[in-house]
Amino acid sequence: MKELKSLSLCYTNKTLLVLNQQKLPLESEWLICESPSHMRDIIYALQVRGAPLIGVAAAICLAQYVENGATIAEIYAAAALLKSARPTAVNLAHCIDRQIAAFEAAQNPLAIIKMAEALFAEDADLCDKIAKHGFDLLSSGDNILTHCNTGGLVTTGIGTALGVIFNAHKQGKKLHIYVDETRPLLQGARLTTYELQQAHVPYTLICDNMAASLMRAGKIQKILVGADRIALNGDFANKIGTYNLAVLAHYHKIPFYVAAPYTTIDFSCKKADEIVVEQRNPDEVRGYGEMNWSTPNSPVYNPSFDVTPGELVTGFILDSGVFTAQELRSLCKTYSSTIN
Amino acid sequence: MKELKSLSLCYTNKTLLVLNQQKLPLESEWLICESPSHMRDIIYALQVRGAPLIGVAAAICLAQYVENGATIAEIYAAAALLKSARPTAVNLAHCIDRQIAAFEAAQNPLAIIKMAEALFAEDADLCDKIAKHGFDLLSSGDNILTHCNTGGLVTTGIGTALGVIFNAHKQGKKLHIYVDETRPLLQGARLTTYELQQAHVPYTLICDNMAASLMRAGKIQKILVGADRIALNGDFANKIGTYNLAVLAHYHKIPFYVAAPYTTIDFSCKKADEIVVEQRNPDEVRGYGEMNWSTPNSPVYNPSFDVTPGELVTGFILDSGVFTAQELRSLCKTYSSTIN
Repeated sequence: MKELKSLSLCYTNKTLLVLNQQKLPLESEWLICESPSHMRDIIYALQVRGAPLIGVAAAICLAQYVENGATIAEIYAAAALLKSARPTAVNLAHCIDRQIAAFEAAQNPLAIIKMAEALFAEDADLCDKIAKHGFDLLSSGDNILTHCNTGGLVTTGIGTALGVIFNAHKQGKKLHIYVDETRPLLQGARLTTYELQQAHVPYTLICDNMAASLMRAGKIQKILVGADRIALNGDFANKIGTYNLAVLAHYHKIPFYVAAPYTTIDFSCKKADEIVVEQRNPDEVRGYGEMNWSTPNSPVYNPSFDVTPGELVTGFILDSGVFTAQELRSLCKTYSSTIN
Repeated sequence: MKELKSLSLCYTNKTLLVLNQQKLPLESEWLICESPSHMRDIIYALQVRGAPLIGVAAAICLAQYVENGATIAEIYAAAALLKSARPTAVNLAHCIDRQIAAFEAAQNPLAIIKMAEALFAEDADLCDKIAKHGFDLLSSGDNILTHCNTGGLVTTGIGTALGVIFNAHKQGKKLHIYVDETRPLLQGARLTTYELQQAHVPYTLICDNMAASLMRAGKIQKILVGADRIALNGDFANKIGTYNLAVLAHYHKIPFYVAAPYTTIDFSCKKADEIVVEQRNPDEVRGYGEMNWSTPNSPVYNPSFDVTPGELVTGFILDSGVFTAQELRSLCKTYSSTIN
C-alpha cells in the first residue's frame, strides 16, 4: 500500500498511525494500530472518530491486514469485526463492503489494498466538493452554530460541515462560529475549537443548553452539522444533541444544514425507525475522563446519537449539490444505480 | 436570633453555617459565614444557591450583622452589598427589602432579626403550599424531566419543582425523574440526583442535549422547573437551558410547569426585556472545577440564566394555586396590593 497522510491518519513504513482524538487538544498522541481487533477498540473508544474517517481508517486497517498475509477466512472475519465497531455510522460498513466487493470481483486480495487507497483519496475529494456546494449558502457576517466536530480530524480532507466553513473563510467570507461543547465527550469544546483556532476562524464556545438563548437573541444566522447516517427520506442520525438543534432552528426559523458525503447515505434504510442508536458507557455522563461529579451509581441514559426527521432539514449539502429531503429520494435512486 | 435549621442553612450558637453546594455530593462541607461581604462571595461562588435560599441566607446574614452591633449606616451598606450578589434572582432583593422596610417601619434594628426568622419560616411554608397545589398535576406513571436543582437544598423547606415531586412521591404516586445534568455547574448531576437518591425517587441522569430525543420517543410526560425571577406577564428567568426545554416542550406538546413562591415574582418587572442576565466566568465553560478540556483561551459565552416567554408555560405552580401566564397578571395585582 502506498504512503497515506491526513490530519489524523497516517500510513507510513507499513505502519498505521492514528491520532488519539481523546487526548486532543492538550496532547498529540499517535497510536500504532496493531490489528483489526485493535482498530475496533480504537473506534469504540472514539480515539478515531467521525463517520467518514472511521470508514477510511478501518479500510486501511483491513488493507494492511491483507498486506501482512491474512487468509481469505481471516479477511472475512476481520471485515465483520470492523463493521461491528460502530453500527450507527454507515460509512464504516460502506467502505468495508466496497473492499470486499472489489476483492470478490477481482478474485484477488490486492483489490482490498487498491480500494483502501481509492477510499482515502475519494474522501478528501468529497470534502472539497461539499465545501464548494456549501459556499453560496454562507454570507459574510454570518454567525454559524455547529455541533460536535466535523473538520479535518474526521475526514482525510478539510471536513464536512467545518469544511464548508473553512473554505468560505479562506475565500474571504467573514464568519463567526458558535461551538456547542457537545456533551458527554466534548468533541466541540476539545476538537472544533482546536481546528477553528488553527485555521484562525473566530469562534465562541458554549454549553449545549445555551444555543436556544442565542437563537432567541437573533445571534445565530445558520446551523451546520454533519451526519453519521442518512436514510432515503432525509431522516438522519448524528451526534446526540443534533435533533435538539433542529427543533430549535425550526422554532426560531433559522436555516439548518447537514453536510455529508454520499457515503453517509444508507441506501438500505428507508426512514428514522430503521436507524439503530448505540447506548454508551454510563460513566461518560456521570463525569468526564477520570472525573466523576455525580451522585455515585446514578442511573444514566447515554445514547451516542439522536435521529432528526428530514423535514427539519433546510438542505443537505452533499458532494453533488444541495438538496431538500424531498429531493434526496430521487437523488438516491441515481446514486444507487451508479454504485450497484 | 433564634436557632434555625434547614438542609443547607443553619444558625446556631450565633454562628451562620452554609452547606457548600459546590462540594456536594461527594463531600459535605459547612462554611462559617463571617460577614455580609463573605456572604456576597459565597452567593457569587454558588456555594449557597437557588433563588429562595439565597434570599433567606442573605437575610439571616444581615440579621446576624445587626445582632453583632452594626450601625445604621453599616446596615444600609450591607443591604446594598448583599443585593448586588445576584441581580437576576429577585428573591434576594425581596428579602432584604422586606427587612429594611420592617426596620424603617418599627424604627428598630431588631425588626431586621424578626423578619429574618419570619422569612425562614415563610419559605418552608411556601414550599408546602406549592407542593400541595402541584399535586393534582402529576399522575402515577409519569416520567418528569427537570433542570438544575430545586429541592430542599435551595429552600428552607422541601423545595419548589422538586418539592412538588417529593410530595407526590411521598403520597404514593409512582414517578420517574429524568435529570438534566445542567452545564456548566452541573447542579442537576450533583445535587438533584443526590436529593432524589436520598428520597428514594427513581431517576435517570442525562446530558442536557439528550432531552429532545427522549421527548421525541414519548418518554417525557411533564417538565417541571423552578424560576429565579418572574415578570408580571409570565416571562421568567431561570438557569441557562430552561428556555431550551420550553421550546422543546412546545414542539412536542408536553406540559411545561414552573414552580415558585410568590417571592420570585418581580412586581416591578413587566416583561422579559427588563430582566438582566449575568455573564459568568469563562472557565466554567472551558472545563469543570480545576479541569480544563478546551483549547486554551477559547472565547466563551456563559450566561447564568436564560429567559423564557410566558406563553410557553403551561402553568405556574405558585403557593396560591396554578395559573397561566395570562392569569398571572391579575393575580400579581392582588399580591402587590397585599404586600404594599
